[in-house]
Amino acid sequence: MEIVPFESVAINYKTVFFDAFGVLKNQSGLLPGIEKTFDFLKEHDINFYIITNDASRGPKELAASYQEKGLTQITKSKIISSGMLARDYLKLKVKEGTIAYLGTKESAHYLETLALKTISIADLNIEEDADDISALVILDDEGFDWNHDLNKAVNLLRRKNIATIVANTDKYYPVAGKEVAIAAGGIANLLEDIVGKNIIRFGKPDAQMFIFAYEHSIKNGDTKDKNKILMVGDTLTTDILGGNKFGLDTVLVLTGNTLPSQAEIRIQTKGIIPTFVCESAVIK
Amino acid sequence: MEIVPFESVAINYKTVFFDAFGVLKNQSGLLPGIEKTFDFLKEHDINFYIITNDASRGPKELAASYQEKGLTQITKSKIISSGMLARDYLKLKVKEGTIAYLGTKESAHYLETLALKTISIADLNIEEDADDISALVILDDEGFDWNHDLNKAVNLLRRKNIATIVANTDKYYPVAGKEVAIAAGGIANLLEDIVGKNIIRFGKPDAQMFIFAYEHSIKNGDTKDKNKILMVGDTLTTDILGGNKFGLDTVLVLTGNTLPSQAEIRIQTKGIIPTFVCESAVIK
Amino acid sequence: MEIVPFESVAINYKTVFFDAFGVLKNQSGLLPGIEKTFDFLKEHDINFYIITNDASRGPKELAASYQEKGLTQITKSKIISSGMLARDYLKLKVKEGTIAYLGTKESAHYLETLALKTISIADLNIEEDADDISALVILDDEGFDWNHDLNKAVNLLRRKNIATIVANTDKYYPVAGKEVAIAAGGIANLLEDIVGKNIIRFGKPDAQMFIFAYEHSIKNGDTKDKNKILMVGDTLTTDILGGNKFGLDTVLVLTGNTLPSQAEIRIQTKGIIPTFVCESAVIK
Amino acid sequence: MEIVPFESVAINYKTVFFDAFGVLKNQSGLLPGIEKTFDFLKEHDINFYIITNDASRGPKELAASYQEKGLTQITKSKIISSGMLARDYLKLKVKEGTIAYLGTKESAHYLETLALKTISIADLNIEEDADDISALVILDDEGFDWNHDLNKAVNLLRRKNIATIVANTDKYYPVAGKEVAIAAGGIANLLEDIVGKNIIRFGKPDAQMFIFAYEHSIKNGDTKDKNKILMVGDTLTTDILGGNKFGLDTVLVLTGNTLPSQAEIRIQTKGIIPTFVCESAVIK
Repeated sequence: MEIVPFESVAINYKTVFFDAFGVLKNQSGLLPGIEKTFDFLKEHDINFYIITNDASRGPKELAASYQEKGLTQITKSKIISSGMLARDYLKLKVKEGTIAYLGTKESAHYLETLALKTISIADLNIEEDADDISALVILDDEGFDWNHDLNKAVNLLRRKNIATIVANTDKYYPVAGKEVAIAAGGIANLLEDIVGKNIIRFGKPDAQMFIFAYEHSIKNGDTKDKNKILMVGDTLTTDILGGNKFGLDTVLVLTGNTLPSQAEIRIQTKGIIPTFVCESAVIK
Repeated sequence: MEIVPFESVAINYKTVFFDAFGVLKNQSGLLPGIEKTFDFLKEHDINFYIITNDASRGPKELAASYQEKGLTQITKSKIISSGMLARDYLKLKVKEGTIAYLGTKESAHYLETLALKTISIADLNIEEDADDISALVILDDEGFDWNHDLNKAVNLLRRKNIATIVANTDKYYPVAGKEVAIAAGGIANLLEDIVGKNIIRFGKPDAQMFIFAYEHSIKNGDTKDKNKILMVGDTLTTDILGGNKFGLDTVLVLTGNTLPSQAEIRIQTKGIIPTFVCESAVIK
Repeated sequence: MEIVPFESVAINYKTVFFDAFGVLKNQSGLLPGIEKTFDFLKEHDINFYIITNDASRGPKELAASYQEKGLTQITKSKIISSGMLARDYLKLKVKEGTIAYLGTKESAHYLETLALKTISIADLNIEEDADDISALVILDDEGFDWNHDLNKAVNLLRRKNIATIVANTDKYYPVAGKEVAIAAGGIANLLEDIVGKNIIRFGKPDAQMFIFAYEHSIKNGDTKDKNKILMVGDTLTTDILGGNKFGLDTVLVLTGNTLPSQAEIRIQTKGIIPTFVCESAVIK
Repeated sequence: MEIVPFESVAINYKTVFFDAFGVLKNQSGLLPGIEKTFDFLKEHDINFYIITNDASRGPKELAASYQEKGLTQITKSKIISSGMLARDYLKLKVKEGTIAYLGTKESAHYLETLALKTISIADLNIEEDADDISALVILDDEGFDWNHDLNKAVNLLRRKNIATIVANTDKYYPVAGKEVAIAAGGIANLLEDIVGKNIIRFGKPDAQMFIFAYEHSIKNGDTKDKNKILMVGDTLTTDILGGNKFGLDTVLVLTGNTLPSQAEIRIQTKGIIPTFVCESAVIK
């Protein structure tokens, strides 16, 4: 397994798609020096987008979290989140009733643009409210009481046959030190296992995420040539598998989920093969 | 699918193994008239045992719950629970350290006979206590805060490579009306999905449960001839599959998990074939 | 579950996507009267495409199979097959070496446009040829000796870490009477189970299939408004799930995989909800 | 991970259960020096049994294969195979009709003791014979034409709801060099995936296998104390998991499925923890 410098790869593409967590930032904040990568891209006229499995906030709030830390180049229009796909789905497919959600009030904030009523699972009274509920959305792992409200979600789905969606395919996320917390995707797996019904999932490695980013970038005047787009990620089963399947060249970086000591064995075991492996997306 | 009276089947056997929930009782209490079944068995000198996927209480407490309702024939020695298997496992395999558990204080009560220290996950401080923990046991879905303590269990298992066991293979259990609650088995599935490690499971359809009952009954002087033992249950994937595989004749009753309208299609779809189908284990 | 006439639904859309097997044809040939449906669409200026999980032949050969039977409106440009996605993937991602395939010589025919060498697994000598193989493609369940060549495929994948793709997500297909045959998708599941590596799958319900059809139809000047496109299929887990997720309205027809007697229970059990249910896509 | 000499472990037990493949022999024959291990056991009055997931031959033929190679201590009564469990199951549960099998004529040989008719899937005519078939048994991966006969097995199971069993939980087995061949367990997975019906599996890690060996050894006058029985195997998910769950101490040896370089990471990843790790069961 050859490890090459990121700049020697990136220089050959016109657009770069970055995963966020494990590539640009980690639980301690931005990766030191990552701003140099964005300077490099600007200098060489390479466009970029951030493709993230995150439905807990809208793109505006996600962009703000980078800007606060000094990465002013990352504006709202640079963010492609799985939450945006979920919102589009609801807009197209759910035209009446109230949307129940698991998550914080903040996570439901950007659903409000849909002009549909929303109700937190925490506030839901099944007997009284179930008739009006037309969809269930899992937005975040916080904002509700798991003992009480996960059982409420189970019984809502047993009682009503409604579309259920989750916009985060991750099972857990890092919190501090080496600790993790169960993510919205893990909660979706639990509900699906108990209820037996199909939950619609948005997020990498699903092609819909990549086509969304691709169309978004084309609208902004960027290249249509898939051979000129590079996907950069730290996770084989989402970033690299999804990028490969969509026909893009891919870079696995070793600053997140895939530790340097494990990269070769994981690539071999899973049969998911990145086009390149780089130590980091940070340019030295 | 022919439906036959339970007494016409039971009369041909020397020992009957009953599942508890859905066969002898449901969420409203004992099935009306079930005492006549036990009178019938006594009259015809047929032995019986109750084989239950329940680790939330010890056999003494389980027996008491029947006796309170007037079924005085069901004594402690008649109860074979998956919790007893879990306790045997811990006795044989965990000889030092402290056992962490998910469940109520009551559920941990009968672990005390092991002479090992126990600590509720709710009381566990990972930084301070992890070194001494030698096993994790999932006993019950109550007695801890899911938001906080399931994440604590995940991080305990990521930090320490310890035996993890659950003595309930059920994913959910009925609570009231048509509602259900997520059971210890569902929580085990969640932890296994997040952490990726193997959880040791005790309970039907596992052969160990049946051999435990079989040996227990032989010790009590009952028949060794498997052709003379009948397993009675309401669930194809646990009671009937497990009984069949152990070489017993099996009766599916339609008073619990398998509704009369679904029995034939489920038998056909799953390919799990009971020897007999009876409306109920209640003798009229 | 309300069953409505197909024409009363179709009349409200500008483009209709049809699944092929179970909707337009079955193992006995075209559904009697299906030509009237295409007359109806033409009369009302409704466009159509056929979206099929089939990689055993190219679009030209697939179109010819309809034309021979008198459906002259179904030309090559009306066909969107999962095989076309597979070919695009290979074109973008596999730029050297030889592509090994499981399938008939005929099924490999349309890969030839890629200007890459191809070799049937039946002709492959692992010791001599493995070095040059850059991908493995599962095209068809015929054309090779399963005993010998499936083991050869297993050992090829164990020896070389190469992209492996299948362009058929179906596990089996109907052959005659009520009999079925194991399909390319079933063979892919077997290889993945044995080798443990990820196989890239193209076909419904994957969004990539729908976006491919959508872009294809837009290029032909058809509507961009997803609210004006209808997906018609006989299978909940591919046609309806995929159509729903892509944001289209969906019709479940009862002439194929989903029998009239099972439709309601399956929709309920799986939680995959078609916008409409019609007896058939044939207009009377 | 501490690696200890096998003799320093074995000396503390009264009975040793050995896995066969990867422990006593590999694809090249017996492990050089393994006869010294059996001399050591005899000298110290330690009993032993061989517990093997093998249904392709009867215990007599299995024992003969060791004796031919000079291990005369391994007699028929020392062999516990998953095939013996399968035969017991058929004896108890299938009392009429004809048993169809996938395997060689030789593999069906020891079913003949059941006094039931048997028919190879290769000789089966579904139209004529299906009525009389009362069970399907997967015995071996050889002896039938996969293209033709696996589809025949699929259609037999779709047509008739019969008990289907496999007595080999292995998905593949080593053949020569680093090559493998798909095993009966892999074929069972394929059939289960296509047909959707439950296949009854006998073999490690299932407790039934261990209880069978345990009872067999008790009958021979060996110890009843599980703390004095040691399970020795090369595979975490079968030998070690099964031995642990049954309450035995376990030894992982590094001469088979688990390579020395992988042992620690696999134990950590899977959470299956052997009591001891030894380089080999060969005593130097």
